[in-house]
Amino acid sequence: MSDKERVILVTNDDGITAGGIRTLVEVAREFGKVVVVAPDSPQSAMGHAITITQPLRLKKVEIFEGIEAYACSGTPVDCVKLATDKVLHRKPDLCVSGINHGSNSSINIIYSGTLSAAMEASLENINAIGFSFLDYRSDANMEVAKKYVRTIIEQVLTNGLLDHQLLNVNIPNLPENQIKGIKICRQARANWTEEFDERIDPQGRKYYWLTGKFINEDAGEDTDEYALQEGYVSVVPVQHDLTAYNGITFLKEKWKGFV
Amino acid sequence: MSDKERVILVTNDDGITAGGIRTLVEVAREFGKVVVVAPDSPQSAMGHAITITQPLRLKKVEIFEGIEAYACSGTPVDCVKLATDKVLHRKPDLCVSGINHGSNSSINIIYSGTLSAAMEASLENINAIGFSFLDYRSDANMEVAKKYVRTIIEQVLTNGLLDHQLLNVNIPNLPENQIKGIKICRQARANWTEEFDERIDPQGRKYYWLTGKFINEDAGEDTDEYALQEGYVSVVPVQHDLTAYNGITFLKEKWKGFV
Repeated sequence: MSDKERVILVTNDDGITAGGIRTLVEVAREFGKVVVVAPDSPQSAMGHAITITQPLRLKKVEIFEGIEAYACSGTPVDCVKLATDKVLHRKPDLCVSGINHGSNSSINIIYSGTLSAAMEASLENINAIGFSFLDYRSDANMEVAKKYVRTIIEQVLTNGLLDHQLLNVNIPNLPENQIKGIKICRQARANWTEEFDERIDPQGRKYYWLTGKFINEDAGEDTDEYALQEGYVSVVPVQHDLTAYNGITFLKEKWKGFV
Repeated sequence: MSDKERVILVTNDDGITAGGIRTLVEVAREFGKVVVVAPDSPQSAMGHAITITQPLRLKKVEIFEGIEAYACSGTPVDCVKLATDKVLHRKPDLCVSGINHGSNSSINIIYSGTLSAAMEASLENINAIGFSFLDYRSDANMEVAKKYVRTIIEQVLTNGLLDHQLLNVNIPNLPENQIKGIKICRQARANWTEEFDERIDPQGRKYYWLTGKFINEDAGEDTDEYALQEGYVSVVPVQHDLTAYNGITFLKEKWKGFV
């Protein structure tokens, strides 16, 4: 396929005015016709939420020079669904999501709107990549990240991905000469320990802010957490079958007699 | 552990006033001290969303006789996090979520707030089960389902689950004598095809309702979809490692030279 024919859908979860999506558009347009459908407001941590109790809106916006772009009132996953059905009227050849302001390594993938958008595309068997940069600040400088975004898009366009898979890419916030390269990894086993911040409002009622501590429980040297810590760009191929196959064996053994 | 000492957290995504959670509370209280922390409004299809841009509220409510219960302003996942940190001040011994009004089989697990709540509990290594009933109506009669909810809770309390795993249980809407039993399954490969319903508002602007068609792409006879279709209660053990291990092999082979 020539670059001229290729259609690339760009989305994110930080919202269509975020710096990260602008950087991603700049790189993606080197590879084909870019169309942006992204949330009109920040949708971080929306996971795989979809909007079923409200109608959705799409608004054409002129914020990327020469690029067709729409702000969507829904979640990142809604954006992908709407883009395919009502904007492109076809599946794009590639869907890239991000660049997220902040890490989406390890278990963060299930909370992340950025990755859920890419995951939604992969469900429709569209090649998809979620990019995240390890600096959550809205003015994060992603110039160094561009090189890796470009390389990874190139590889995916050249080699494809296995059916219904996507890539979770995290890029460390390091000077160019300190990034050691790209590492293919597995997702580290980790979770968050909650520490809600309890406060009292002016009416005397309690409210809570969600905060937490990320706990990496995985000592493996083949994980995304380890790769990032060592100064690599981490690439985790991701799929959607949540079945715990060893759990099937366990249950069939233990629940004997009635299953 | 005696039933007296056991603490069972009950939550859902249809909201604390839904019929399904009432049915689940009725069964769960046979096994220990039940505490309910559930959304104060419907949160269907919220996936693994968490609330980070708004503070959360908890309101004590008296709607289940003799049961401590709180309505939470957040998502199902927020409910589990808040329950552990600010209501129970400990991990519950079991977390049950549902009974959802409508199926959460196959890929629906990643959109479902009911299952995401159970998944969040399992991340904290709490034994967790998400229950769904194949009738989406708010006045669905779940009397027959109770028997299976009871049996499955019993099995989990007796045998436990493998670390960080949960169960996705779907119960067909059939008369008691037509349910053939319980089947341990894998998640069927399926997706949704979007068919947005485009409408015009009174101001002449377009808006879209998300609708779609569920496509089961899996002919396997060991899937949850097949079990349900044959009249069984489906039980899928679920885990959170989304790594596509065959994807790692594929990428290492194809991206040779620079990874």
